[in-house]
Order: sequence, then structure tokens, then C-alpha cells
Amino acid sequence: MGDMELDEFRKYGHQVIDWIADYLAHPERYPVMSQVEPGWIRKNLPENPPEEPESMNVILKDMEQYILPGITHWNHPAFFAYFAISGSGPGILGELLSAAFNVNAMLWKTSPAATELEEVVLDWLRQMMGLSDSFIGIINDTASVSTLCAMVAAREAITDFKTRSHGLTGHSKLPRLRLYTSEQAHSSVEKAAIVIGIGKEGVRKVSIDDEFRMDAEALKIAIKEDISNGWRPFSVVATVGTTSTTSIDPIMKIADICDEYKLWLHVDAAYAGTAAIIPEMRYVLDGCERADSIVVNPHKWLFAPIDISAFYCRKPDILRRTFSLVPEYLKTNEENVVHNYMDYGIQLGRRFRALKLWMIIRYFGKIGIINRLSEHISMAREFTSWVDDSSNFERLAPVPFSVVCFRANPWVRKGRLIRNEDEEYLNTLNEKLLNEINATGQTYLSHTYLRGKFTLRLAIGNIRTTREEVKKTWDLLQQYFVKLDKQLRPR
Amino acid sequence: MGDMELDEFRKYGHQVIDWIADYLAHPERYPVMSQVEPGWIRKNLPENPPEEPESMNVILKDMEQYILPGITHWNHPAFFAYFAISGSGPGILGELLSAAFNVNAMLWKTSPAATELEEVVLDWLRQMMGLSDSFIGIINDTASVSTLCAMVAAREAITDFKTRSHGLTGHSKLPRLRLYTSEQAHSSVEKAAIVIGIGKEGVRKVSIDDEFRMDAEALKIAIKEDISNGWRPFSVVATVGTTSTTSIDPIMKIADICDEYKLWLHVDAAYAGTAAIIPEMRYVLDGCERADSIVVNPHKWLFAPIDISAFYCRKPDILRRTFSLVPEYLKTNEENVVHNYMDYGIQLGRRFRALKLWMIIRYFGKIGIINRLSEHISMAREFTSWVDDSSNFERLAPVPFSVVCFRANPWVRKGRLIRNEDEEYLNTLNEKLLNEINATGQTYLSHTYLRGKFTLRLAIGNIRTTREEVKKTWDLLQQYFVKLDKQLRPR
Repeated sequence: MGDMELDEFRKYGHQVIDWIADYLAHPERYPVMSQVEPGWIRKNLPENPPEEPESMNVILKDMEQYILPGITHWNHPAFFAYFAISGSGPGILGELLSAAFNVNAMLWKTSPAATELEEVVLDWLRQMMGLSDSFIGIINDTASVSTLCAMVAAREAITDFKTRSHGLTGHSKLPRLRLYTSEQAHSSVEKAAIVIGIGKEGVRKVSIDDEFRMDAEALKIAIKEDISNGWRPFSVVATVGTTSTTSIDPIMKIADICDEYKLWLHVDAAYAGTAAIIPEMRYVLDGCERADSIVVNPHKWLFAPIDISAFYCRKPDILRRTFSLVPEYLKTNEENVVHNYMDYGIQLGRRFRALKLWMIIRYFGKIGIINRLSEHISMAREFTSWVDDSSNFERLAPVPFSVVCFRANPWVRKGRLIRNEDEEYLNTLNEKLLNEINATGQTYLSHTYLRGKFTLRLAIGNIRTTREEVKKTWDLLQQYFVKLDKQLRPR
Repeated sequence: MGDMELDEFRKYGHQVIDWIADYLAHPERYPVMSQVEPGWIRKNLPENPPEEPESMNVILKDMEQYILPGITHWNHPAFFAYFAISGSGPGILGELLSAAFNVNAMLWKTSPAATELEEVVLDWLRQMMGLSDSFIGIINDTASVSTLCAMVAAREAITDFKTRSHGLTGHSKLPRLRLYTSEQAHSSVEKAAIVIGIGKEGVRKVSIDDEFRMDAEALKIAIKEDISNGWRPFSVVATVGTTSTTSIDPIMKIADICDEYKLWLHVDAAYAGTAAIIPEMRYVLDGCERADSIVVNPHKWLFAPIDISAFYCRKPDILRRTFSLVPEYLKTNEENVVHNYMDYGIQLGRRFRALKLWMIIRYFGKIGIINRLSEHISMAREFTSWVDDSSNFERLAPVPFSVVCFRANPWVRKGRLIRNEDEEYLNTLNEKLLNEINATGQTYLSHTYLRGKFTLRLAIGNIRTTREEVKKTWDLLQQYFVKLDKQLRPR
């Protein structure tokens, strides 16, 4: 009865800590991308749950034998896919403490420290990014949820909270609602539109300029056109650091348009927002002080283990009017003097996520954070220079942060006109190149398509990534390019 | 540069493990409910983030000095508020490992082990609860999100996925949508209705019987009435273990009605579902095999640290049609042979939550889980018998699980007619009683209102709770009742 004996907890706790330290000392001993076949883990584990208790010793051995081979190592210094992330040491210790405290931060009183540390630490992050104190911070799990919350609040604001009570259907006079985002926006925007009931057609994807940024002129024209066709525009979701190319939408111009048409401006800065902590990079959030809400994920580029999403809103009263539901069993005596964070979002259950972020910011300090992010950007610029100087690779987008979009192209800088069949070959070549270098287990890149071109993405963001690792990947790319181009190029 | 030195990680890791072991050995050294004043933590922490790095030693000391006093101890053996929960030893170690792996389980390939362990472990839990293998499991963070996913899917199913593309507004012919749940349902149902755009009026709260269960007759009448008034019913959310009293809605009868009217039946068994692991308690899920979806939270009553919510659905194809959005940068070669869990819900970012549940189920074994849950139920029954035998307390609801609803009432079993002014006095008395015993720091109960009566709730669910602790709380209740009744009773 009861929990694990504490001597046993101590013993296995130490063992797990040591295991993690050994693992993090050399994640490069493992292939970056797991090399198991679909079904391998499942078939190695019992189909039925155990009747009897098993020893932690056996469980941890099985973890090594059957789970570890199925891990794709996001900790590997050559993890360059999607957005590379880091669960840093202080972040891991923070998660460990949070799991032990196991508090639910739904109400202030259910752990005042969880609520107040959330206030303090999100204010620290706000200050570091140079945002004004008109923004109130709330921690969500993911940017998907932060953006969803923003869209629900924007919808409620425009319908004067009638939607909260009445809903969207059955109004003979309510026009169709529309939000605007760029063609390069994250899929979470469209998912939010599905969830809140405006549908995929309720999202108008605004065209982009030649640097993958939302075209503000096109946005304005779209809004005018929609209004004249009976739509009701209600929000613009702009992005600082889009997923494919990390382009930065022209926030200032977009904010002007939002002012003019009274639209809720939400900024998705999930990946790139923390770059603004670097003084020379502060400009990337220019105009964001005029946004109604903004999301920045410390689990992306601020060394926090997944998950923690910082959602800032200048209209917390609207969030509260949108989401607050206080059943009798959750009423407290302090509700007028404290934040009960359950009132500001979707989830009632809320982990104590602020603790790890507090430990990370203190452990690295603002200076340590600036140095690490700057180093990532600098490595990306170095890689960019290699691509730009190469006669076999070309860059396909600007590099404002730490992600490089590029492809192999044997005809680059050869003054040769690229025909349609050449483009087809380049797509095949680059897809093959990606699959083969990922299969080596020595590096892991992901891809996107840019203007019909299969594009390789190298994303730097892991705290263990070094210049040597980036160079090794560059060498691999060249080596496999030569081999594949020889094999595959039509004659 | 780089992460914390690994020797340092090892040193502080061991220190944190030891600290946690010492803490969990005696959480009763701390007041259950934090006794800090609003603002105390905030005012003790620096307003601005540190410029320079700080040592982990100082950070951990500050944690003890400024965070710990603001913790409400959900680990305390006398935590009886809301639903009492446990972050067990194996669960904490599981979280620690997950934080260290720091994988995002959005796609199979981004960590095959995370996806396949999720499949395996949710299948184990399904088997233990005696649900059929037509249910496919998906891990979400919270029941709020699981129920929201169910409602979005139910809405899409009834509108034939037109809402996904077109949205709810601007259909001149789409009637108002309505879902049904009992007056005792959790607030997350209403929150889901707000989010998906059917509004609070889109939730019809069905009346309850004298044991706080949904009245199936009333449900049927409500549906018929709504249809004849032009509403479009689309779902029923039934509850196994409501939040206030843990009542069990008559699932079988409700399922008949859902069949008849083609409504999506979602069952909220967030707290009580795991009780079905006990063979004699399996009946509590009777009828649930006919539900379209069901949510059970291992972070409530299965010893998992917050957060992990198990969402089971018999129509995964509908979930997928509802939620799947695969932008180019997330396309993979395996999508037809594996689950990419991002396709089945709202969040793209997904922590590796299956690991802790796997470790918990193996460590305790099915038998160990049954014994612990049975002990909780048995303690609740013992407490119930004390209340039932007392001449100063009365029970206000049946006790199917481990939560007891009761109040102090000096006139109980005295054959005296309770007048309105007596009821007012009893409400005042019980509220005062709750506040005073919680202020002792020796116990923590929460409250609800049942039929206008201020009701005390004693919820047993912490793995460290013992009969002695329950008895101590009972003694405290009696002692404070005598004191307060003397002070407060109008003469």
C-alpha cells in the first residue's frame, strides 16, 4: 500500500539522474532519427497489462531495451529538423520538482506560488523581449492552444459576447466571420478556425511577398473585398518567424490595418519571439506592442522542456469574459484580489509550468540566454555563407533567425536556364538527399516546399549544437549530393 | 555556452531527488493549504529578471524559502479537496525521463516510441477498465481538452464535415445546435460549448434525480421539445462520477436515447473511470461500451503526476477527418501505416506522457492499483459510516466512490422540522466550519452546494492518505463544529 518506498525512490532517482547525465553527455552515440520499423516497439511490449507489480530495475532496463531505440533524439547536437529545441539541465530539474509538487494551478489558492510565479516569470520574459507592461501573461501548454484562445477571444469581442451565450448558429443576421493570415502561417491557425466554428473557409490566406512575408497591401484589399461581399472580418494572425522560412510579417503595417478595421491582431511568435531578447534582434517584435495578443514558446527557443507556451494579452478582461465559468465547487474568497488562471483559458487542470522557466532564466541569466541564442543565429549565418558560396547548393529564403532553407542544385551559378524537367529532377534529388542523410542517423533535417521547390530546412536551436556538428552535416550534404547526382541525373 | 555541466547536473539532480524524498516522507510537516497572503510570493521575488547567471544552489534555496510556503500540498495525506490526486514515485521518475528525452510526439517518426507506447499503454488501461477494443486511445493534457475534442468531432459528424470547411455562420438553413448534459456536469462541458461556437444556450442542462444522476426521461423530453422548436440536438455528455457528488448518470438508458436520435454520446469519467479496474466496481462503466467517446484521467485517480488525460474514441476516423491538417513541412512517408497523433486532436506539440503511465502500471501492477483504489473507497465508506452514525452530521449524497458529501447539522436525527432560517444558519455554520478547519493547515476539504445546502466534500485519492489521517480530520470537524455551533447558533 501507499507509494514507492522512499529509499527506493532515492535509489532509483539517483540512478535515473545518472542515466540522464550519461545520456546527455553523448546523445550523438545514438542515431538522431529513430531507425525502428513501424510496429517494432509495440510488438516488443506485452499486449496485456501486468497483473503483479514489477521492479523498477526491470522497468528501467526495458526502457533502455525497448523504448530508447524508438526515440528520435531531439537532444542530439545534429537535430536540425522542424524547430530544434532544448530541454536544458535547469529545465529538467524544474520539471522534476513540478512533478513532485504535483499541484494544480487552476486557482490561486490551490497553490499561490504556482500562480504568482507564473505572473513573475512571464513578466520577466516580457521585459526581456522588450514588450510593454500592458501585456498580461498566461501559461498554456502549446501555441496551438494559445492561438485557439486568442481566436475565441477575438470572436467573442466582435460579437459582443453574444456568441458566448447564444452561439454562432441561428442568427439570421450574423454574417460569416473571417480571419486573415498569410499563406505561410502555421496550421494551428486553421485548426483554431475549425474548432471555433468558422471553418477553413473562415480563414483567408493572404499572399506573400518575395521574402515569404504577408503582403499588407493584399491584406487590405482582401478585407475590403470580403466586407463588400458580406463577410465580417474579425482578426489577423501575423507571424514573427513562420514555420517554413522564419519570415517576419510586416507587423507595423498590419497593425495599422487592424486599427482601421477594428480587428484583433494576434502575433504567432512561438519560435522566434525569444530572439528579441538579443538587443540587436529586438526589432523583430517591432509593432507587436500594438498587438492584442502574442504567443511565444519557451519550449521552442528558450531551453524549456516541452511543454510551455507563454501567451500575452493586452485585453485580459476580454479573455476573462470569454472563458470564465466558476461553478460553486471552484468559488473562492480571494477571487477579486488574485488571478485564478482557470478563468483565462480552456483548461481547468494546469501544471506548475512556471517553475522550470524561473529556474532556466535564473540559471542562464539574461546574458547567458543572449549568448546562446546569438550563437545559434551565428551558426546559421555561417551555414548560410557556405550555401551561398557553394556551386552545388542554393539558398531559397532569407535567414533572419537560425533556420536555413536551401537545396542542392548543380546548375546554380552556372548561368544555365532551369527548365521544368530540371525542377522535377531537383525535387527528386533533394527529397532523396534528405531521406538518405537522415537515414545515416548522423543528422536530421526536415523539409518544406517553397514555390514548388522541395526545400531542405536546417534549424538550429539545440543547446548542444556546435559549429563542428553543423560542419559535419554540411559535409554529409555535399558527399551525398555528389553520390546522388551521379546516380540520378538524367543524361 | 552549452547546457549546464553534467557533473553539476548530476550533483544537483541527486540533491533534488533527495530533497523530494525528504519532502514526500513528511508532507504533513507543512500546512495542507498554503497560508500565504495574496501577493506574498510576488513581493519576495525580484521584479526584474537577472542579468547574470545564478548558481543552482541559490536557486534551490530560494525555492525552499519563497516558493515552498506558497505551495498548497496536494501530496499531504490530509488533502481532501476537489479530487485528491497523487504523483507517485514511478510517475515522478517517468516525468523526469520524459523531460530529459524532450521529444515531441506530434508525428510517429519524431519518436516512434512515444507514439507506440501511447498505443500500448492506453490499450492496457482500456483492458483494465473492461472496455472493448473498438475504442482507440489518444493522450491529451486534460479532460477539458478531451471533452472539447469530443464536442468538435460530434459537431463535425452531425454537419457532415461542412462545418470544418464552411463554418457555422452564414448558413441560412443550419438550425441551432444543442448538446445535453446534467445539471451536475463539469464546467468543461459548457466551456467546450463556448469554444466551439454553440454558446452556453447550446447546452441544455437536464434535471437530475434524487441521487444527482441525469434523469433519462427528462433528457428524452428535452430532446423532443427542442426538435419541435427547431433545435438540432447533436450530443449528450454523460458523467460517471460527477464533480460535486460523484453520481453516475444512467449510461445505458442515455445510450438508448442517443441511438434513437443519432447523438454522439461522450462520457466524462475523468475521475471515476479508473475505479472500473476493480472487478466489483466494473459496473460503473456499464453502458459505456456504447459511447462514442469517453475520457478518463490517470492524473486524477491513477497516481500519475498532472497532466495526462486518456481520451478513448470509437470513431477515430471522424476525429481524424475533423482535426487532420498536414502542411507540407509535416508530411512523412509512413502516414498510411502509423498513427501521427497530431491528426487526432488540437495540439501539435505533444509531450511524451505515455512513459509515466507505463511505469506506473508496471510498478504497481493491476493488483496494486486495485488494492490502492479499493482502500480509498473503503476509507470513504468508513468516513461515511461515522457521518451516518453521528448526531451532529448528516450525509447529503450517496457515496459510490471515494468522495463524501456531508454537512454539520445539530438537528439531524432529532426529529425536528428544519425551517428556512435553520437552513440559513446551517449554510453559515458549514461555510465557517470549512474555512476554520482549512485554516488549521491540518486538513483541506472543499465544498459545493447541493439543493441550496452548503456541502462539505471529503475526497480521498491521495496515495499517502491513511485511516488515521481521515480519523484526524473527522475529529477536527467535530471539535470545530462544537466550538462554532456554540458561538454562532442563534438563540
